[in-house]
Amino acid sequence: MGKAVCIIGSGNWGSAIAKIVGHNVRDRRELFDPLVRMYVYEEMVDGEKLTEVINTRHENVKYLPGVQLPDNVVAVPNLLEASKDGDIYIFVLPHQFVADICATMKGNIKKDSIAVSLIKGVSITEGGIKLISDVITEELGIHCSAMMGANLAGEVAKEQFCESTIGSTNEENGQMLKRLFETPYFHCMIVNDTPTVEICGALKNVVGIGAGIVDGMNYGDNTKAAVIRLGLMEMIKFAELFSPGSKVSTFFESCGIADLVATCHGGRNRMLGESVVKSSKTVKELEKELLHGQSFQGPLVAREIYHILETKHMLEQFPMFMAIHKICEREMDPSQFVSCLRNHPEHM
Amino acid sequence: MGKAVCIIGSGNWGSAIAKIVGHNVRDRRELFDPLVRMYVYEEMVDGEKLTEVINTRHENVKYLPGVQLPDNVVAVPNLLEASKDGDIYIFVLPHQFVADICATMKGNIKKDSIAVSLIKGVSITEGGIKLISDVITEELGIHCSAMMGANLAGEVAKEQFCESTIGSTNEENGQMLKRLFETPYFHCMIVNDTPTVEICGALKNVVGIGAGIVDGMNYGDNTKAAVIRLGLMEMIKFAELFSPGSKVSTFFESCGIADLVATCHGGRNRMLGESVVKSSKTVKELEKELLHGQSFQGPLVAREIYHILETKHMLEQFPMFMAIHKICEREMDPSQFVSCLRNHPEHM
Repeated sequence: MGKAVCIIGSGNWGSAIAKIVGHNVRDRRELFDPLVRMYVYEEMVDGEKLTEVINTRHENVKYLPGVQLPDNVVAVPNLLEASKDGDIYIFVLPHQFVADICATMKGNIKKDSIAVSLIKGVSITEGGIKLISDVITEELGIHCSAMMGANLAGEVAKEQFCESTIGSTNEENGQMLKRLFETPYFHCMIVNDTPTVEICGALKNVVGIGAGIVDGMNYGDNTKAAVIRLGLMEMIKFAELFSPGSKVSTFFESCGIADLVATCHGGRNRMLGESVVKSSKTVKELEKELLHGQSFQGPLVAREIYHILETKHMLEQFPMFMAIHKICEREMDPSQFVSCLRNHPEHM
Repeated sequence: MGKAVCIIGSGNWGSAIAKIVGHNVRDRRELFDPLVRMYVYEEMVDGEKLTEVINTRHENVKYLPGVQLPDNVVAVPNLLEASKDGDIYIFVLPHQFVADICATMKGNIKKDSIAVSLIKGVSITEGGIKLISDVITEELGIHCSAMMGANLAGEVAKEQFCESTIGSTNEENGQMLKRLFETPYFHCMIVNDTPTVEICGALKNVVGIGAGIVDGMNYGDNTKAAVIRLGLMEMIKFAELFSPGSKVSTFFESCGIADLVATCHGGRNRMLGESVVKSSKTVKELEKELLHGQSFQGPLVAREIYHILETKHMLEQFPMFMAIHKICEREMDPSQFVSCLRNHPEHM
């Protein structure tokens, strides 16, 4: 029997990955069950249930309109039903929902199933951070890998060539996930450094807001390149401090510099940064206006790491992260952003 | 007596750096002679000599129009006169002219003068590469540093915040150059790894063409991020092979990832790559049409490294560099470019 795949989440990225996974399981029946269940948070779209639209028109009209999903991807509105008897769980939903989802799944899944997190974020503990993959492992008692990379969903859905990084501490699971996700246009590389992969995925969205701020201020490519570089340096330092054993080489993978560059040019958090300069609305208001129900992950992560860094008296080592949080909270004017970079600790 | 500074070259970047240097030497008279001589290759612009225009209107109307140069920067059309009695030589001209310039200066300069190369390129020898800074040192018998970074000239001239990297094997010279170049908007960091700084400056223009090719093919930010990442990997491998002792950490400086990102988004070699897709003209024709007398450095470097790699039977390790050279030579169709990346050695 092939392994049954369950996708938990159905936003922009969840739908794009459903397209890949749906095709791959059908092409690789020796490995995978050809039916993919996708847990969809039910909502009404123009008078119809979103799950019914997906299951009849095979399109997520709300979050990835215009993209045909394979018809072996079945939308299921009930989490327990969707996740029952799964062998591989793909977590792809905003990180604030992970705890509740896991609480529902706990005790209702196979003990030898595995998971992979595509979630951009980290959890906060008193002492520091906890990875989403670790949260999933602790809650569900199953091994969890992570996959991150320069993978803007709309472009992946259009089958434009890109790379992605699978972080897995279990080689067999890493190889299985590569077979699940890889296509000629979606190239997966495996590293055994899951923490750095996830930290990159969380923090790049914070830097992306910074890139948007300098775009909004009409700075050019030099300033933006400095923001990207200094942001990368803060990401590396954060990983060193809060995830000892993190490898600098992982930052050279797609989840590192490549995703950072893509996020700083095409991501939604970049758009948020630009909007924060050009309007005086709050982030919440901008989210409603710009994302129609999706959420900006960058400000949430920025707030969380601000509080960790404040508690540990380390804020001055991370002037960019600090400034971005304060600008998102409207406690600092965006025009101050570049000044915060002039005496960066990297320059000492 | 303050040190006399001579700028050799007066193109787009030479003129932007002349603005910085002119202001800095005036503000730091305890260190520098407040008069800066700039060697300008004489040409006629709308019936006037370029040197006369610069010396009366204080603007390089041909290569950096609209930017006021400080009036203590004096354009000199005669190289020997410009370089006589200099203490610090800033080389900022296309790399194909370095040998002739040095041959003229040889024997006519102070023995304890120093140089810094802002030239993007490397020289080719039978066994491999020779750095421009080494060419200058060998020809003139003086120490030579290098400065490279995410420094698109037009944006520097507008005083937008950016960073730059000074590579110097002599700490005192590095510090002196930092005082010559640094301003609140132009931040200089010193590394003692001159070879990697120069190799980055040369090779980033090749990758920039690749970024332009995917832009021209209407790929999005994911594919471009993959081009940037794989290009960086080829740059690192090239440095390892041809400049043993090269430090990976230098690629995290402005001369590394930051300059690469800026070049792949705003540089003239990116523009060339896009034009190569959208027209069927040769690189020479595009150069005339787009640059009005300046030159594209990327295709020259691409050709040179292609020949080294071919001689050493290493082409298959550098599929991106190889493809970019062939596309520039019109020996490969740009539509083949992305296919060349699908089985990249980095993916093995």
